[in-house]
Amino acid sequence: MPLTPEQQAEIEAARASGQTTLRATVAGMEAHLYRAHPVLDHGFVRVVDYMGDDGAICQAARVSYGKGTRQVSSDAGLIRYLMRHWHSTPFEMCEIKLHVKLPVFVARQWIRHRTANVNEYSARYSILDREFYIPAPDALAAQSSVNNQGRGRALEGDEAARVLDILKTDSSRAYDHYRDMLSTEGQSGLARELARMNLPANIYTQWYWKIDLHNLFHFLRLRADPHAQYEIRVYAEAICQIVRDWVPAAYAAFEDYRMGGVQLSARAVACLRRMLNGENVSQESSGMSAGEWREFQTVIRPETE
Amino acid sequence: MPLTPEQQAEIEAARASGQTTLRATVAGMEAHLYRAHPVLDHGFVRVVDYMGDDGAICQAARVSYGKGTRQVSSDAGLIRYLMRHWHSTPFEMCEIKLHVKLPVFVARQWIRHRTANVNEYSARYSILDREFYIPAPDALAAQSSVNNQGRGRALEGDEAARVLDILKTDSSRAYDHYRDMLSTEGQSGLARELARMNLPANIYTQWYWKIDLHNLFHFLRLRADPHAQYEIRVYAEAICQIVRDWVPAAYAAFEDYRMGGVQLSARAVACLRRMLNGENVSQESSGMSAGEWREFQTVIRPETE
Amino acid sequence: MPLTPEQQAEIEAARASGQTTLRATVAGMEAHLYRAHPVLDHGFVRVVDYMGDDGAICQAARVSYGKGTRQVSSDAGLIRYLMRHWHSTPFEMCEIKLHVKLPVFVARQWIRHRTANVNEYSARYSILDREFYIPAPDALAAQSSVNNQGRGRALEGDEAARVLDILKTDSSRAYDHYRDMLSTEGQSGLARELARMNLPANIYTQWYWKIDLHNLFHFLRLRADPHAQYEIRVYAEAICQIVRDWVPAAYAAFEDYRMGGVQLSARAVACLRRMLNGENVSQESSGMSAGEWREFQTVIRPETE
Amino acid sequence: MPLTPEQQAEIEAARASGQTTLRATVAGMEAHLYRAHPVLDHGFVRVVDYMGDDGAICQAARVSYGKGTRQVSSDAGLIRYLMRHWHSTPFEMCEIKLHVKLPVFVARQWIRHRTANVNEYSARYSILDREFYIPAPDALAAQSSVNNQGRGRALEGDEAARVLDILKTDSSRAYDHYRDMLSTEGQSGLARELARMNLPANIYTQWYWKIDLHNLFHFLRLRADPHAQYEIRVYAEAICQIVRDWVPAAYAAFEDYRMGGVQLSARAVACLRRMLNGENVSQESSGMSAGEWREFQTVIRPETE
Repeated sequence: MPLTPEQQAEIEAARASGQTTLRATVAGMEAHLYRAHPVLDHGFVRVVDYMGDDGAICQAARVSYGKGTRQVSSDAGLIRYLMRHWHSTPFEMCEIKLHVKLPVFVARQWIRHRTANVNEYSARYSILDREFYIPAPDALAAQSSVNNQGRGRALEGDEAARVLDILKTDSSRAYDHYRDMLSTEGQSGLARELARMNLPANIYTQWYWKIDLHNLFHFLRLRADPHAQYEIRVYAEAICQIVRDWVPAAYAAFEDYRMGGVQLSARAVACLRRMLNGENVSQESSGMSAGEWREFQTVIRPETE
Repeated sequence: MPLTPEQQAEIEAARASGQTTLRATVAGMEAHLYRAHPVLDHGFVRVVDYMGDDGAICQAARVSYGKGTRQVSSDAGLIRYLMRHWHSTPFEMCEIKLHVKLPVFVARQWIRHRTANVNEYSARYSILDREFYIPAPDALAAQSSVNNQGRGRALEGDEAARVLDILKTDSSRAYDHYRDMLSTEGQSGLARELARMNLPANIYTQWYWKIDLHNLFHFLRLRADPHAQYEIRVYAEAICQIVRDWVPAAYAAFEDYRMGGVQLSARAVACLRRMLNGENVSQESSGMSAGEWREFQTVIRPETE
Repeated sequence: MPLTPEQQAEIEAARASGQTTLRATVAGMEAHLYRAHPVLDHGFVRVVDYMGDDGAICQAARVSYGKGTRQVSSDAGLIRYLMRHWHSTPFEMCEIKLHVKLPVFVARQWIRHRTANVNEYSARYSILDREFYIPAPDALAAQSSVNNQGRGRALEGDEAARVLDILKTDSSRAYDHYRDMLSTEGQSGLARELARMNLPANIYTQWYWKIDLHNLFHFLRLRADPHAQYEIRVYAEAICQIVRDWVPAAYAAFEDYRMGGVQLSARAVACLRRMLNGENVSQESSGMSAGEWREFQTVIRPETE
Repeated sequence: MPLTPEQQAEIEAARASGQTTLRATVAGMEAHLYRAHPVLDHGFVRVVDYMGDDGAICQAARVSYGKGTRQVSSDAGLIRYLMRHWHSTPFEMCEIKLHVKLPVFVARQWIRHRTANVNEYSARYSILDREFYIPAPDALAAQSSVNNQGRGRALEGDEAARVLDILKTDSSRAYDHYRDMLSTEGQSGLARELARMNLPANIYTQWYWKIDLHNLFHFLRLRADPHAQYEIRVYAEAICQIVRDWVPAAYAAFEDYRMGGVQLSARAVACLRRMLNGENVSQESSGMSAGEWREFQTVIRPETE
């Protein structure tokens, strides 16, 4: 369970009393506010605040004085146009603030996205809880034999059991020793900023993370992608569900142009034109490397082939 | 008047209908929302949206689950501590979005602050209005004789009249020519992206500008400073009034530690210690340059001397 | 002529004396160093410094200790892989510093790229030179009738002459008045920070501009694009020539994947698959809007059709 | 030893062959280039490249065409002026690229400085080495009893021995298990991106880190400060030595105005003026909290008191 009863009570208290505001509000997001969406075994994502909506993107693009008399359909068209032509600044006018609980090795990938604001729980100042990520059986994957940074099928039988046992036992022992070193019973007690170094990367941390919609879309495109590591992808997918409820028109454009879209090289475009003219193009005659050709095939042929 | 009746009506419409939200709201900011605060002769600043309040700064600093049971006084103490020790990330958790109308030469200074999101009205796409900044008599200042980038006393008499006449006449003629070149009556009409090059830097532009509180404080410290150019300082001062109503505790800490605070060099601190020990220190014995010594005097001696 | 004899002499002096270094150096860039490449009527681009080369991109990607024993061909392959999969951080490990002289209205577009370092010549502190951009006849374009932010064919005959006359006369008069207002002969002289407001947007300014290769590529993709305004595009094209000599492998990958590449939406990919299966797809059956369909046609059909 | 013989040989090879360049070079930095400066038990800092020197700061501030005829003393004066008045952009015109090997818990603090470019060694792609930070006896500190995020005196005797034993044994066991899980002998072998989660935060990682001088000074002010955690401070101190050799005038100004300088609040300045007027001010009459008063005393009274 990611939340204690006390934490759950704090969330309920925050959800109990609405206030009147003149700002842009979105009913779908109000329903999400403060609630913890569970991710992995102990993690969560929850919305702490948001700024703007689909209309705010258009207002900024038009530098307008009010909501104007535009229709929702005209806003959706403008949003698609902005997305298609990489006009990123209107999307930067929306902002979201999340509270995320996540394993440290996921946090280390996540933080590489620098255009965000972060406040992490400090293990110099506080003592971390005994919560570790232990993969579910179907997430316990073997190293991929074809992709140096990918994973293959799930481990089975004894090997899976051995790995789970190692992860659980080592986490537990490391945490016991962490508390032993910190203890001031009959000893001085090691500094917290030092004791934390004994903790493995599957321990959970948490942070407040604030980012604008343009940069969030960039994060989601990379991290909700099938090639992203499973443990960060599930967070990205949880955020996708939230964004869909927040800015439905922008999210639909994002799905069409970014998540579902592809980038083709000049060589690939040249091939395509020849193929549409009826020519039979092979890798050899394409000018592409084997890797590029393989990726090109996945674009033009249904993945089910 | 910075606003047309239509624009004023759009603003009134936006202010007419509140919605219920669970987010942090601030009564003082709700009163500001959408209203245009006049600045200079045709400019304004108005709040389009905001995220967070004093409590949100503390929640982020504590990475907490709800508002907790802390008292307002404890929040103010934490905010002062964070400001004093340059813990900037909790202040980044608040965000504000402004609509600003301002002369182009002010916009060019303003945009140097890069850690903000901007959507400017496009003179490639649209035709600019006939609105130019013409300084009020007391803002029509002579070049400073002591500071290469400062200004001295207000011009007087004939000189003031000549300058005002030049600014008004040249602006007016440039704008007439701008419209003449754009006109498609009996001619093709010059491209808007070219015609705009004839317009002087006192023409007004406008933009949506979004920034987090930490970076806004940095902007305000530099631009609300007495050494800042008057024409940007009045915008900074208008924003200060707004921020004071938004996050009163953070703004009070900002005033004490940043706006009213000073930075002393190691040499200055060494001097100070000697002076507090009763020593009579002169510029010569201080190790400081003439300029540094002068600035040091303004710190330790009341400015009225 | 963009340079005075004194400036030319300073450049020659800087080019006269080489020093020995252990850093990565590129012969092609050493040839560019300090020289001014003319752009428009009075502008230029010149390289002031650079960091890294194609090898440095690979070293960073491999976090290696030295140049290793890799071959140039292996480096080029890695660079193509990094570009194709949007691994941007290795490209950020190269940096370039340029000195650019450019009209103010171009500078205003340029500065929107925020991920760069800029030091602009200060018109608060110094007096600007009498240099204005006056378009060459073939750059004096009419407003496009189909694209709100584009331009059409060149103006002709009397209209062209009228426009040129306006631009020249207004620039000249504005500059005369600028100097008149600044003058201290028989008067106080207006502050420089105020007098500059009378100058039109075709006056030249200059700055030092420093950016990493990843962000430079982003700038070049947008600004060397045929849809960019001509007056900024010529600067981008001049920089492209320089980058080609600096990091040839990275530039070739950039040309293939970014400049010559295209982004297709999910809808467009679905269409493509149907077309490759022999289906005859029309705009109606494509699910695309008229604008999207038109853009899609330019991708799959040679532009000469 | 932080380097293998092979790595040392690569470094020597890179240092063996200088090239001629027209760029600004600094003899003191050439001596540092590529060499590994040892930090902690297995870490290091080494300079991979640099851009600019003291002169380059001034050239950018003046937007000049060449080195000009200014003297070194005039440059140093300008640099002090720029530092004193927070003109940060000229310092951004210098850039440095470092290769750093450091424990993961240090890397996690370090990465919070977002205005830098980073390429980290990937434990998804590669297998980490068996190298762990084990504190030297005098760095094995107890938790501070007065500062929640600080450390007190070194642990002694049995307690120190117990802690060292835990850190060594747990690291070693975790690493053995990491290799066991990865092994493909008689089993599939766990994916590298998963196996790494068993590794504790004292394992070493490495990265290429590139940053401009302004942001580097900000990093150094926070991390070379006596209140910074010892394990990151030793890296900052090693970098300070390097920067001193790179840009001596800028570093001297940094030491005077930033490292050795202090920030006083408006309240503190008011106190100071009263004290210089001979008044005896106590905490009660100062308007400061106990914590602020204590910090104020360390500024005005020599630390040796």
